[in-house]
Amino acid sequence: MNHLQTVGFQKLTRVDTALRILFDAVGERAIRLESLPVQRALGRYLGKDIVADQYLPRADRSVMDGYAARVEDVKSASQELPVILRVIGESRLGAKPRMYVGRGEAVAIATGSLVPSGANTVIMVERTTKLAPSSIAVHAPATAGQSIARKGEDVVPGAVVLGKGALLRPQDIGMLKALGLAKVCVARKPHVAVLSTGDELVNSSSKRNVAKVVDINRAMLSSMLQELGADAVDLGIFRDREASIKTALKKGLKTCDAVIVSAGSSVGNRDLVPKCVNSLGKPGMLVHGVAMRPAMPTGLALVNGKPVFSLPGFPVSAFFAFRTFVRPIIAKMLGVKELFESTANAVLSETITGIPGNLTYVRVVVRQNGQGLIAEPFKLQRSSVLMSMVRANGIVTIPEEVTAIERGETVKVTLIGEILP
Amino acid sequence: MNHLQTVGFQKLTRVDTALRILFDAVGERAIRLESLPVQRALGRYLGKDIVADQYLPRADRSVMDGYAARVEDVKSASQELPVILRVIGESRLGAKPRMYVGRGEAVAIATGSLVPSGANTVIMVERTTKLAPSSIAVHAPATAGQSIARKGEDVVPGAVVLGKGALLRPQDIGMLKALGLAKVCVARKPHVAVLSTGDELVNSSSKRNVAKVVDINRAMLSSMLQELGADAVDLGIFRDREASIKTALKKGLKTCDAVIVSAGSSVGNRDLVPKCVNSLGKPGMLVHGVAMRPAMPTGLALVNGKPVFSLPGFPVSAFFAFRTFVRPIIAKMLGVKELFESTANAVLSETITGIPGNLTYVRVVVRQNGQGLIAEPFKLQRSSVLMSMVRANGIVTIPEEVTAIERGETVKVTLIGEILP
Repeated sequence: MNHLQTVGFQKLTRVDTALRILFDAVGERAIRLESLPVQRALGRYLGKDIVADQYLPRADRSVMDGYAARVEDVKSASQELPVILRVIGESRLGAKPRMYVGRGEAVAIATGSLVPSGANTVIMVERTTKLAPSSIAVHAPATAGQSIARKGEDVVPGAVVLGKGALLRPQDIGMLKALGLAKVCVARKPHVAVLSTGDELVNSSSKRNVAKVVDINRAMLSSMLQELGADAVDLGIFRDREASIKTALKKGLKTCDAVIVSAGSSVGNRDLVPKCVNSLGKPGMLVHGVAMRPAMPTGLALVNGKPVFSLPGFPVSAFFAFRTFVRPIIAKMLGVKELFESTANAVLSETITGIPGNLTYVRVVVRQNGQGLIAEPFKLQRSSVLMSMVRANGIVTIPEEVTAIERGETVKVTLIGEILP
Repeated sequence: MNHLQTVGFQKLTRVDTALRILFDAVGERAIRLESLPVQRALGRYLGKDIVADQYLPRADRSVMDGYAARVEDVKSASQELPVILRVIGESRLGAKPRMYVGRGEAVAIATGSLVPSGANTVIMVERTTKLAPSSIAVHAPATAGQSIARKGEDVVPGAVVLGKGALLRPQDIGMLKALGLAKVCVARKPHVAVLSTGDELVNSSSKRNVAKVVDINRAMLSSMLQELGADAVDLGIFRDREASIKTALKKGLKTCDAVIVSAGSSVGNRDLVPKCVNSLGKPGMLVHGVAMRPAMPTGLALVNGKPVFSLPGFPVSAFFAFRTFVRPIIAKMLGVKELFESTANAVLSETITGIPGNLTYVRVVVRQNGQGLIAEPFKLQRSSVLMSMVRANGIVTIPEEVTAIERGETVKVTLIGEILP
């Protein structure tokens, strides 16, 4: 257990070590895939490479309204010396043109229509004048291939247009449609059980008993799972009794791909989660107590191949434990290397301090400040303060080796909300 | 019509002018609101300010496992001279403590439990030693209020915890729960009709007829609407005939809050959309032709108070027209000032050029380059090339007044995908 260091009453594991232990333990589990209609695949992760089986465009097309012609006829056309062409027909949208464009001839063509054989340029309608029903004057020169989208200039057969693991954005959905795909293979959404333990927890606020606390974590963590592309299965609140926690964990492990239990990770006499987890399967608890603030009492376990995350009860702590551990593991389950996060560089308005040997997350407000950004740390950073998380639009990470980052220094901020003016 | 400038065959309106014309025309329409269960409100926009009606925490709570005591008893405690306290009971989670902590006394307390009266500090269990069932030694000093989350330190009644128009994130959902709210008032999702016109368009790829083109725009634009928090109503593909376009527009205007029609905006003899729009209600077409690349043939209209967006047929053009015009108008309908976009500063690897007087969007790939980022513009920027949009993870905007941005200059990039290593 050389990854452990003694801090106070607990052996704390470094964040990077803890993450690696769980990451390795989860192993290369096969990511289950499913096939979905393309128009329902937004925000999903590709299960396989998408390899084109056709050319895009599938044939030479005009990208302008105008006339298809032969470049040798019109390359010298000018305002003073226009070239007269005979219009022999029209290439209509959606139909194959049957005519051949010979010397001195042109074919009327609409944007998106196929370029008829014989023609090798398209002259914009603005550069022509209609002289008679079947005659135009061209008064600007044209070049070969002009205003033509060539067959295959976008995609050729065999090209990998989107890679396995890619997040499908609207433009990617468009590409899948363009390739004529009706369905697409994506990673199935992991099902994650979410449950809370604690005798003080209730589902809704009671005016009478201030000793009771509304359970915030299930709703918040379920929302975080939803954002990641996982399905949350809310199992409810459980009392701090071994039997009830065991029942809940069993149910979660049976029906879901992973389990998140919150509030069961303190070190008092109510610390039943590790005991219950260890009784349910191997290897059980892998990490209990992480060298990080907030969320130090986080526990990580694996039971019969399924990760169990024991998150602290304070919502702020649960939020950071989720970001630090649940997020990358869910990403692995989805077959993605890293999930996109928005970051920005900002100048600290106040010095921030970490606890030596611990990774510290500091909630900040990022504001536009002239050309640059300024990050203002919250005064009250403790994990019981929900407002620090609601008001924050950024997170600054202080590494284990750093004691303080001075006011005026530039830091990288992970953005969790809109930058304020 | 002094906002128009003549470029080629069309009068083009500047992007900012075009947007302002539609924005003003849409006016201060009442944003329709709906009430949703809090746990279903992720990603929605608040319809009203959320004003706290209670204190959070609702009473003084311990944030540690330990002992509640009186600071005057323990402020001088040390390893050498510990202070002995008599433990008179325990404050249990979820229950109101009934005891009073007198001089020389302590009460065992768990994280989250209420601080009993008389006590004004909590000593972490790690700083104590149990001497007997009802006696502890405290071997570190304590300060007043230590390890106590004070009633109202997070939220006080009357505080505006979240403002109207705020996007609800997981932590905000948590806050709504904490305030005991079961439901929350949010902006109803705008319903937006999406339809395509074009005789060349088909719903799926036909191997036989290369003159047909798969309609990409409806799927892509519907996905873009979904990302924005709007509901897309897919009306299908319509032929380039006045009657069929009119029927489609009527249906969209009757059932939805806005209509997006794509491919109906070219200037050839198929330019029927403006005619149809103008026949359906006032004021009709407001802008037709915008000084931007791509998406120059964009049209903006208002019919009986509902915006109609006429987007170009090329998917790349439709994508940019959507971002430029549909996005801010949908934001207005949702009651939000601005929708969040991720941006980064990057150094251009190649010089990029715009068309004077036009706003130009350049698709780029942003890569990590040592400490900074580098933006590589695509060679083939034309609007028929889908891959430029699929591969791109960033957009650089060249303003109307700028002809070129030189290689080596730092530009602001709007991120539309993950930054590459």
